[in-house]
Amino acid sequence: MSSSNVLKVALAGLGTVGGGVVDLLDAQADLLRQRAGRPIKVVACAALVKRDPMPRDAAYFTDASVMARETDYDVLVELIGGGGGIALDIVTAALERGKPVVTANKAMIAHHGLKLAQLAQDKGVSLGFEASVAGAIPIIKTLREGLAGNNVSRVMGILNGTCNYILTTMRNSGRDFADVLAEAQSLGYAEADPTFDIDGVDTAHKLSILAGLAFAMPVDIAAVGCEGIRHVSAMDIQFADELGYRIKLLGVAERGGDGVRASVYPAMVPLASPLAHVDGVMNAVVTESDFAGRTVLGGRGAGARPTASAVVSDLVDLARGTRIPAFGVPVDHLRTYPQVPSELRRSACYIRLTVTDEPGVFADIASALRDEKISMEQVLQRSRSPSGTVPVVLILHETDEASLGRAIDRIAKLPTVAERPHPIRIEAV
Amino acid sequence: MSSSNVLKVALAGLGTVGGGVVDLLDAQADLLRQRAGRPIKVVACAALVKRDPMPRDAAYFTDASVMARETDYDVLVELIGGGGGIALDIVTAALERGKPVVTANKAMIAHHGLKLAQLAQDKGVSLGFEASVAGAIPIIKTLREGLAGNNVSRVMGILNGTCNYILTTMRNSGRDFADVLAEAQSLGYAEADPTFDIDGVDTAHKLSILAGLAFAMPVDIAAVGCEGIRHVSAMDIQFADELGYRIKLLGVAERGGDGVRASVYPAMVPLASPLAHVDGVMNAVVTESDFAGRTVLGGRGAGARPTASAVVSDLVDLARGTRIPAFGVPVDHLRTYPQVPSELRRSACYIRLTVTDEPGVFADIASALRDEKISMEQVLQRSRSPSGTVPVVLILHETDEASLGRAIDRIAKLPTVAERPHPIRIEAV
Repeated sequence: MSSSNVLKVALAGLGTVGGGVVDLLDAQADLLRQRAGRPIKVVACAALVKRDPMPRDAAYFTDASVMARETDYDVLVELIGGGGGIALDIVTAALERGKPVVTANKAMIAHHGLKLAQLAQDKGVSLGFEASVAGAIPIIKTLREGLAGNNVSRVMGILNGTCNYILTTMRNSGRDFADVLAEAQSLGYAEADPTFDIDGVDTAHKLSILAGLAFAMPVDIAAVGCEGIRHVSAMDIQFADELGYRIKLLGVAERGGDGVRASVYPAMVPLASPLAHVDGVMNAVVTESDFAGRTVLGGRGAGARPTASAVVSDLVDLARGTRIPAFGVPVDHLRTYPQVPSELRRSACYIRLTVTDEPGVFADIASALRDEKISMEQVLQRSRSPSGTVPVVLILHETDEASLGRAIDRIAKLPTVAERPHPIRIEAV
Repeated sequence: MSSSNVLKVALAGLGTVGGGVVDLLDAQADLLRQRAGRPIKVVACAALVKRDPMPRDAAYFTDASVMARETDYDVLVELIGGGGGIALDIVTAALERGKPVVTANKAMIAHHGLKLAQLAQDKGVSLGFEASVAGAIPIIKTLREGLAGNNVSRVMGILNGTCNYILTTMRNSGRDFADVLAEAQSLGYAEADPTFDIDGVDTAHKLSILAGLAFAMPVDIAAVGCEGIRHVSAMDIQFADELGYRIKLLGVAERGGDGVRASVYPAMVPLASPLAHVDGVMNAVVTESDFAGRTVLGGRGAGARPTASAVVSDLVDLARGTRIPAFGVPVDHLRTYPQVPSELRRSACYIRLTVTDEPGVFADIASALRDEKISMEQVLQRSRSPSGTVPVVLILHETDEASLGRAIDRIAKLPTVAERPHPIRIEAV
């Protein structure tokens, strides 16, 4: 095989994932040559500082922009991260030069995916981002290729390993959120600034990409509603257990007759759901479509090696000559759907109230619900406590969010209710 | 878009799956034109008798061989089934004419996959068989493309919906095998001759294909050990429940330092395993590989619509111009591994004995095990019964199959043991 046949990779970013890609390309060089039909080699890499492992025989740049613009390569692999800045700059520069791009950058695809897909299409090159969602799980390929014959009606999943680790540990240990988060930070499972993960932003980025692919619509991060897990307490997790649920941070995107809704929120999923058993740092994605029915894909959502596996699958596709539009159809065929207003969304839900332990408290709560035509499926009350307040849990039948919001406003104002409750939706997966 | 750009399909077989493909291509014509970049149209079909839905404007043949050999088409879709005969004849004829083939025929790929892959490669055309394993689950694509950067060490799964339906129903109803099988037959979930399904042959076909792809080795159905579910009793299922397991018919293929083992057998899987919760006609496949780690893919394994979804994903790939070797690498790179002799395989297992309820019985059983250096983890004995025999359940620590076989031979000959026991392996998934 002549060396001119090599797929020449310019690699931007030598952090965790970059290191994993260098490792993989080195360790599996023979395998990849057979599968891809040609060698895949890093010919240039860019990082602010050198870090082991450095790719062998590759030119080293401190300025990724210089590498992207001036080096000879066949594909730019962008592993710097960040929704804009240098990552967006070099990806744009590469595409403008007619070079295909492979990236793990969910924030960039969520914010600029449409524009980049258009640019890639104009230049006749591919844009791969399998590694941007759910690490080793081939969900991008599944939506873009495996389910190509389907109308997808729903895609949902556990897409953030940090949140799932925290929720799993809270359940296993009975400890509270802040405590487990602090531990996760000290173990390196959560960032020093955990906002992106625990407030659901990372999940929203990924969900917007999945929704774009599943429904063949322009990626629109602004349309994704977002609620994190800060308010989930050890007590909620314990009640969920008693009621036969697990609490998971879900990203859910649905397409119905009235449009598309996409949102991120902690939800109670029944034990019979495949998502209930996805624990720790694992991710899973459920798709529902008209011919394939429901599929469930699970695996490692992050980490050097699983993410490198996804990056390299895009490289092998490229080396094999596979060419598929970034979002499965040409950009001009992407269709915008009405956004379903969140107030109209309907779901069953769980509410935990902290109430003064005195007669008549419950009558006020019940009438707030009745006035909004919300019916209760179940009420659980804990035994009396010396503090004078007791938790009361309500399981509400399906209701729209506007009515629920009004009922909660009223309940929160009752003098017998100690703090504003956070409803947790019950998701029948 | 000019009509010369149409992907012309010759469809052989208008049974359940064939009907599903006709339906899908009709219902999703616009979607497919966008995704594939060109229309996909059935121009010819072959079946012994016409059946609704017939594809519109397609030439009809009673002789599939005439269609395969003499019609003008771009791809032959083979949905007749059967390991050889007419299916193999027309697939071979199409490939020899330089026409790509898409098939759902697991028996044919299991028996003739290597030869067909070679022929397709010689003619420079592709051979797609996503629909041959696990219906709507894109496991072929995942092994061939998504995990292309990995050495896969294990692939295992629940691959037969009939067996999983029977085992699930036995558990839910407490009824015995023969009873549930008869019901499944009357409902159309099991064939009149159920041998292929319940004796594990269908699972073995599928496993041989998965092993070929996962380990890049020649498909070899003869190397797959095969044990079905006939001997699994309602009592076994009840004991499994008590012990925290589910009984599932698994296909398991592993590659280690000593070679490859591939076998089909009913196994106890712990409740923590993702496979434990795959119920009814659902299928699931677990892969373990060096970079991606473990992935789990689940979904509908059979039926007109899910299987049609898989067939059409191969057609869309073809229409998009994707070209990948049938088993992920060129045929000359497929590597044969030593077959690990089944006697050397080690596993923990469950054995249920029916013994005479009298003193000293257990001493004989225990010494048979001790003499083979097999140690017991747990013994469960049911209360006395009026029949004079009682079930005793042993959970044995990991042991090789040769030692276990000798111990069982000796135990089966004891006058106090009523029938030859069938060990059920415990699979730590």
